[in-house]
Amino acid sequence: MYENALELLKEKRYPELRTMLIEMEAPDIALLLEEAEIEVVPRIYRILPKELASETFAEMDPDMQEMLIKSFSDNELGEVLEEMFLDDMVDLIEEMPASLVKRILRVTPPDSRKSINDLLNYPEDSAGSIMTIEFVDLKKHVTVKEAFDILRKTAPDKETVYTCYVTDARRHLIGVVTVKDLLLAPYDEVIENIMDTGVIYNYTHDDKEEVARDIEKYGFLAMPIVDNETRLVGIVTVDDAMEVIQEEAEEDFAIMAAVTPSEDAYFKTSVWAHSKNRILWLLILMLSSTFTGIIITNFEDAMNALLVSFIPMLMGTGGNCGSQSSAMIVRGLATEEIKLKDFFAVFFKELRIALLVGVVLALANTARIWVMYSLIYKDADIDIWFLSLAVGLTLIGVVILSKVLGCVLPMLAKRVNLDPAIMASPLITTIVDTCAVLLYFNIALWIIPL
Amino acid sequence: MYENALELLKEKRYPELRTMLIEMEAPDIALLLEEAEIEVVPRIYRILPKELASETFAEMDPDMQEMLIKSFSDNELGEVLEEMFLDDMVDLIEEMPASLVKRILRVTPPDSRKSINDLLNYPEDSAGSIMTIEFVDLKKHVTVKEAFDILRKTAPDKETVYTCYVTDARRHLIGVVTVKDLLLAPYDEVIENIMDTGVIYNYTHDDKEEVARDIEKYGFLAMPIVDNETRLVGIVTVDDAMEVIQEEAEEDFAIMAAVTPSEDAYFKTSVWAHSKNRILWLLILMLSSTFTGIIITNFEDAMNALLVSFIPMLMGTGGNCGSQSSAMIVRGLATEEIKLKDFFAVFFKELRIALLVGVVLALANTARIWVMYSLIYKDADIDIWFLSLAVGLTLIGVVILSKVLGCVLPMLAKRVNLDPAIMASPLITTIVDTCAVLLYFNIALWIIPL
Repeated sequence: MYENALELLKEKRYPELRTMLIEMEAPDIALLLEEAEIEVVPRIYRILPKELASETFAEMDPDMQEMLIKSFSDNELGEVLEEMFLDDMVDLIEEMPASLVKRILRVTPPDSRKSINDLLNYPEDSAGSIMTIEFVDLKKHVTVKEAFDILRKTAPDKETVYTCYVTDARRHLIGVVTVKDLLLAPYDEVIENIMDTGVIYNYTHDDKEEVARDIEKYGFLAMPIVDNETRLVGIVTVDDAMEVIQEEAEEDFAIMAAVTPSEDAYFKTSVWAHSKNRILWLLILMLSSTFTGIIITNFEDAMNALLVSFIPMLMGTGGNCGSQSSAMIVRGLATEEIKLKDFFAVFFKELRIALLVGVVLALANTARIWVMYSLIYKDADIDIWFLSLAVGLTLIGVVILSKVLGCVLPMLAKRVNLDPAIMASPLITTIVDTCAVLLYFNIALWIIPL
Repeated sequence: MYENALELLKEKRYPELRTMLIEMEAPDIALLLEEAEIEVVPRIYRILPKELASETFAEMDPDMQEMLIKSFSDNELGEVLEEMFLDDMVDLIEEMPASLVKRILRVTPPDSRKSINDLLNYPEDSAGSIMTIEFVDLKKHVTVKEAFDILRKTAPDKETVYTCYVTDARRHLIGVVTVKDLLLAPYDEVIENIMDTGVIYNYTHDDKEEVARDIEKYGFLAMPIVDNETRLVGIVTVDDAMEVIQEEAEEDFAIMAAVTPSEDAYFKTSVWAHSKNRILWLLILMLSSTFTGIIITNFEDAMNALLVSFIPMLMGTGGNCGSQSSAMIVRGLATEEIKLKDFFAVFFKELRIALLVGVVLALANTARIWVMYSLIYKDADIDIWFLSLAVGLTLIGVVILSKVLGCVLPMLAKRVNLDPAIMASPLITTIVDTCAVLLYFNIALWIIPL
């Protein structure tokens, strides 16, 4: 369908395109418009039925939204905004330049404007900042039949109707009832008798990731959000939770690869912006590897090509071991599988893993040196067994150090409320590199008679 | 609530514990039982009401499920299984040892047994392997009122009732209608008139990640799954989609950190298993860094401490640049933001980023050498400007090489249907290390009169 529509678009067969578009889903139409020439976008947009047009608008990139708003009359803008959910409007306002925000707020009815302002005031990354206030609430004395009547009346304006929240006169959350519960109950049953009172909820100031994880854990379609007086003020829906989990994973990926995270898409980000996001960490890591360099310059005695040739392997193995541990711990902390109270359990587990891995690698390395000695280094000036011993001991030391740092640093970061991912591979690699060289030259000069 | 229940559990106050448990959600009860002493688990499990007990059972770790099944009579086991959804039963059967599977299938009614066998036959990672067959289907001629009656009758056995699928006599999927649509329509309206006919669906053989991404993209609560003749055979629900997306991200994290991915939790995996998952890549990478070592041994002339001291920085920067690019590309491919047809666009973008980043780093490095020369290397035997030039040129070359490899290799991997994450940081790092040393010594020996 998408491909056919794209064809019609390219051939400018608009009447047929319209017939096709009204059968399509909003995210696909938004993607299609990305492919269209910029001048025809407003024209195609205007052939969409009102509701579908608003849904499509909410799915678009900020650039395209901005372009469209500029092409709208106040009247048209008002119609689009009227159909939008409040949380989508908040997202829109956060992305638009100040001049457009003014215009958007001007054509918004005063009561929505107030709600939007309230939502804009929640701190970034808080549950309040991603919640919607368009949920269904019921009073406990209504019957199932009355509840269905309420749902029928209010459904068009609610983002999800399948979970209804029961509140008392002061808007405290006292129960929850699903449409499935309503379907299974007799029409004259009172909500109070079928509602679930052990309601799980989050606070507006809770971290949005915590809310997303809870929605995933409990398999909810929506999580109720309460204020400090446990009054129900909004809900976070499962589709927003999926987005939060996805964004969080992308952010961790970026940080662990030493890139400053950005919410913008790869192709939407300019070469300049990409470079800026990457260069800070590279500079920090480059300058910090100066220490490793200084250490090497202090070992003029050890400047033997055979000895130096093991440095890349030692540094590489240390870096990889550190990445392995830190990646496991960072993700474990993110998914809450590992908690701070598990510090010592993790520490000793990594220590045992490091010992095992270190010894195996040292043995493999000895075998490798032995093979290479008999093939390449036949006339080397260093004794093969001394060399194996020095490299092997360093290897075990480096593996232990990198695995221990790889688990301790992310947990320490978490303890002081930093993002654990910052402590992942690149920083650990730099520390391990320095220590690896220091350890290696000291052990080598001590063991090997040069 | 969870903390209070834990306290009651530890003080063995079971009657009070029961009162508390029946108010709790199944995932929390499963977590609580993990904390209990193994002998009391079956006893606490038996005080739960039947439905909650089954839900809790489905949330448990395989170890605990196995232990409980062994403690069940056939009768008890039958009761637990009767309440479980078929897709949860399939998950259970896939985790249990053969002897228990036999027992489970023996106490399962024949028709469920047949469905389970069908589900077990779908290939791993296919949509079929994660779908459930317990969905609501309607015929197009029923009225809204009749549809509600059907929902009321069948709801208890269905995993989700909020999206109903309309099928013809031969079970072809012809439309979809949500409970929200039903709520908004008059009771005597016929389904055919309100159903959405532009149904989006996936095939049983589609990759489960594709289905999960589509569910996320369209904001669906469930995705219909059809067989090769487009007959509706099952649905994938949003909670399973969230799990797939989560698992996929964890898998990419593991592979990019050079760990063989495993589905088991950190603490549930033994030191042996952890070591095994990590050692393969370490060995491969260690042995491949042999090449870098061999190159160094061939540059006996260049064994000048000051010259050698820049190797860690060059290798580190190359590795980090490669990780940055490959991480962006691997995740872009995973979320389908970057497609294979974008190959050249990505290539040229990374090339321009590399040039910009490389030049900035080379300049920063010159400044650093200049500062250090005047402070530390006052009596060095190498000319500062020659050194800066050699290191700077190498740096630019290494950055370009690593960024290009970082985008080309994952895309090539994808092209030949390998997991792009395998081509991420560790492997690229190794290639870049080798090239960095080769490039550096050649440039240095050519520029610097040693």
